[in-house]
Amino acid sequence: MVDSAKNSATEEKKTDFEYKHPLDHLFYARNVTIVGASPNPNFGAGFFLSAFRHSSYSNPVYLINPKYVGKLKDIRGYPIFASISDIPGELDYVICGIKAKLVPDLIRDCVAKKVKYVCIFTSGFSELLTAESKAAEQELVNIIKGSQTRLIGPNCLGALCTKSGITYDPVYSRCEGNVAFASQSGGIANNLCEIQQMHSLYYSKGISFGNQIDLNCLDLLEYYAQDPDTKIIGMYLESTGSADGNAFFSLMRKVTRKKPVVIWKGGQTEFGARAAASHTGAIAGSLKIWKNAVIQAGGTFVTKSHEFWDVLHLFSRLIPKERLPKGKNVGFIVAGGGASVELTDTFSTSGFQIPELQPEIQDKLNEIYPSVNTSVKNPVDTGAMGMFIDNIIKSIKWMDTDPNLDIIAFFMPLNWLSQLERHGAVGYTTSVARSLWRMNKKLTKTFFIICPIFQMSEFNAKISLQFKEVLWKKFIPHFENIIGAATALNHAIRYSEYLQTQT
Amino acid sequence: MVDSAKNSATEEKKTDFEYKHPLDHLFYARNVTIVGASPNPNFGAGFFLSAFRHSSYSNPVYLINPKYVGKLKDIRGYPIFASISDIPGELDYVICGIKAKLVPDLIRDCVAKKVKYVCIFTSGFSELLTAESKAAEQELVNIIKGSQTRLIGPNCLGALCTKSGITYDPVYSRCEGNVAFASQSGGIANNLCEIQQMHSLYYSKGISFGNQIDLNCLDLLEYYAQDPDTKIIGMYLESTGSADGNAFFSLMRKVTRKKPVVIWKGGQTEFGARAAASHTGAIAGSLKIWKNAVIQAGGTFVTKSHEFWDVLHLFSRLIPKERLPKGKNVGFIVAGGGASVELTDTFSTSGFQIPELQPEIQDKLNEIYPSVNTSVKNPVDTGAMGMFIDNIIKSIKWMDTDPNLDIIAFFMPLNWLSQLERHGAVGYTTSVARSLWRMNKKLTKTFFIICPIFQMSEFNAKISLQFKEVLWKKFIPHFENIIGAATALNHAIRYSEYLQTQT
Repeated sequence: MVDSAKNSATEEKKTDFEYKHPLDHLFYARNVTIVGASPNPNFGAGFFLSAFRHSSYSNPVYLINPKYVGKLKDIRGYPIFASISDIPGELDYVICGIKAKLVPDLIRDCVAKKVKYVCIFTSGFSELLTAESKAAEQELVNIIKGSQTRLIGPNCLGALCTKSGITYDPVYSRCEGNVAFASQSGGIANNLCEIQQMHSLYYSKGISFGNQIDLNCLDLLEYYAQDPDTKIIGMYLESTGSADGNAFFSLMRKVTRKKPVVIWKGGQTEFGARAAASHTGAIAGSLKIWKNAVIQAGGTFVTKSHEFWDVLHLFSRLIPKERLPKGKNVGFIVAGGGASVELTDTFSTSGFQIPELQPEIQDKLNEIYPSVNTSVKNPVDTGAMGMFIDNIIKSIKWMDTDPNLDIIAFFMPLNWLSQLERHGAVGYTTSVARSLWRMNKKLTKTFFIICPIFQMSEFNAKISLQFKEVLWKKFIPHFENIIGAATALNHAIRYSEYLQTQT
Repeated sequence: MVDSAKNSATEEKKTDFEYKHPLDHLFYARNVTIVGASPNPNFGAGFFLSAFRHSSYSNPVYLINPKYVGKLKDIRGYPIFASISDIPGELDYVICGIKAKLVPDLIRDCVAKKVKYVCIFTSGFSELLTAESKAAEQELVNIIKGSQTRLIGPNCLGALCTKSGITYDPVYSRCEGNVAFASQSGGIANNLCEIQQMHSLYYSKGISFGNQIDLNCLDLLEYYAQDPDTKIIGMYLESTGSADGNAFFSLMRKVTRKKPVVIWKGGQTEFGARAAASHTGAIAGSLKIWKNAVIQAGGTFVTKSHEFWDVLHLFSRLIPKERLPKGKNVGFIVAGGGASVELTDTFSTSGFQIPELQPEIQDKLNEIYPSVNTSVKNPVDTGAMGMFIDNIIKSIKWMDTDPNLDIIAFFMPLNWLSQLERHGAVGYTTSVARSLWRMNKKLTKTFFIICPIFQMSEFNAKISLQFKEVLWKKFIPHFENIIGAATALNHAIRYSEYLQTQT
């Protein structure tokens, strides 16, 4: 962490980690070198310095900037060197934040030093779409040919690992999860870090890998497939870059038998493809071909950021508990007729069935709910009696015994919790979440919560994060809105059906 | 307000309001009577008492509950009577929160007293789907036949008027807007109040009108059409209730020439129709027939809560300024390649064009943005230079001169503002919003902002509300997510095209 930075940068620490795969030297690098670092913490390579200062990374971090050698002893406690060759010992991970025209010489130095991985943060290569910039990119590929050095990018942020502390993001919370991501876009890789608390999406590893001229989606898929900490793989791709497309989809077919692979394809349209070309130099390829290839390989194909977040979150909460939905029959419990109708309309339009509950379960529910302003058919509209969480839990347990249901969903706007907390029921949010957890442990069906925030305030933001934190830890999927939930559930059902055809 | 409640309840105040339409006596009622009120503030009629205590309503509020007459002098300052006939003078608006079996006698008393409007909050009528409950509902209709009394509901919350203070919602902010809503669902009517700050959606008037056995969607459409404070009309309907369907759509055709009418039809599917029947006793009718009828009448047809909120918000910001989009050509400005690609993909999939900017505008943009990690084609990807709002404003002004564009959109995650405020730029949020406002005043094209919150925190919630408040006041539409923006824009374009065919 921040205080240990000075020490860690000067002495190499022993690690218990056993290096099995070449890419372990990236994600569990024994040292990091930041090229182009300056005392400015906000721009260019300084951004990476800030990120490592706030991370749990405890191995040495070296800086390269000839401008400061002899003038400053260190920058924020990290030692400064004039060039790669001046740093003693083997180098695992070099991050390059210097101008494009200086990059080839740096890569030559890295090759000479047998550096394992170089992340080229620098932009200004094939995404400029000029002959000159494409040639400059090709030159980098030529330099590393036959060497031990591999390139990440250019035009990217590099790797992230919650266990080792390797990072590109100063605000990343370091909470370990089971999702690994790979994104050609740095902005989308950043968003994945920023949204993690709000959408309860936490990672084992991640990478922003830009124009993928060397390290590509095939390498990353192969690495994540064997990574014991990764149970779900998510990729934002604009192209397959330097990877062979057939090899990529052929590997995906093997991986999806063990881990869900979610692909978000950027550049889906004519206009989008033009934007993708200016972004990562990608030749986008037909959306239909991509979609078919992903689906035939048992992957999950998405087209939007919220869809990507929602389905990764859903898998991350269902997979370790083996609670993938067995079918499309949903039972809802909700306080309110309007929400009941919207839930039913939306899920029904999305291809779900909302069967009437068995008469004996309706009879039991009638014991709790008065006949007026409620309904016990399905959706179960609890009316005001839904304010009491014990009623909800009892009802869901009964619904869990209905053989016609595969999935049970509870719709609860978070304002309900915050209103009660405000009126003196301090700690009620956590207690509700824990009660739901104890119930969920015993359920046989897939269970999730739709918990929108209708009224935003500082207090409601706090309550919302408290509630989601418990749900996440206790493997209860939650969604912000109805259509997002229906879309993610559909993906999970498709994956569950695919797995059945593969056994 | 709260302190004036005691005074206002005992003496009738003069009002400057000129009563022109019968329904003015509901929305600008000279007095309100709550039947069934008790000292419990949270349930049943007590809920209405709380609502009026927190509203700006300054005319008399009377309570009826024979149980407390002679025992309590008043409840929270409001005088208690044993029956309708005991209250002196003419009564405009009676809210009935007593049991279903007691309702017929109350309505008889109201008819005898020539009460103008009775809101039957009480549930337990046709939505129970029993022959008995349907007969009980029919009895209410029979009681008022030929009388001066009109019924709202049953199974509803009644009216809301920001000018008069008539209300059903204790937390309603009372900020006046130009949107009038009518909802068969009380829950949806409540949500419309709760979301108003977060989604910048403010109202002139609103009503929850449940099973609509008497006062119906036709009456409300006719009233809102002539209401000078209402520029946009939004309705959540599960059926046309007691209204004649043909008359409703025929009136809609007239109204939409002057004001947008947005219809959200609940009970769109077989399962949804069953839920709607249990909710408001609605016979839902075919979705296709409804959709066609609405669209042929120049209305806007939506199917989800967020779509309803987004399009009402968009109309409310564009209509008074006559800034409806003239076509489907969009120019984007955004910091980040991934977001550029997602914006382009989503809008392109939704039928929009994203034309390359004119060469001379690209040349001007090149003066600001370095060639690396940016793009000036469209989307304009500003890279890190987008952190400076002056650059954004200059760029948008140039984009406004491009004859190939109809719409300009700025994508800015709110984390950007909150990070800068956190790092010492206090007040920066408001200053950015004001700069955008000054710019927007001079633009010739439709302009809007997509400003998601990726990272939720108490601080970010505060910053977000500050930013949205200025945008709302300054007539700049804003959206939380890309697909929501594209959907709402499409509705606005369709309406704009419809208006052109009508002139």
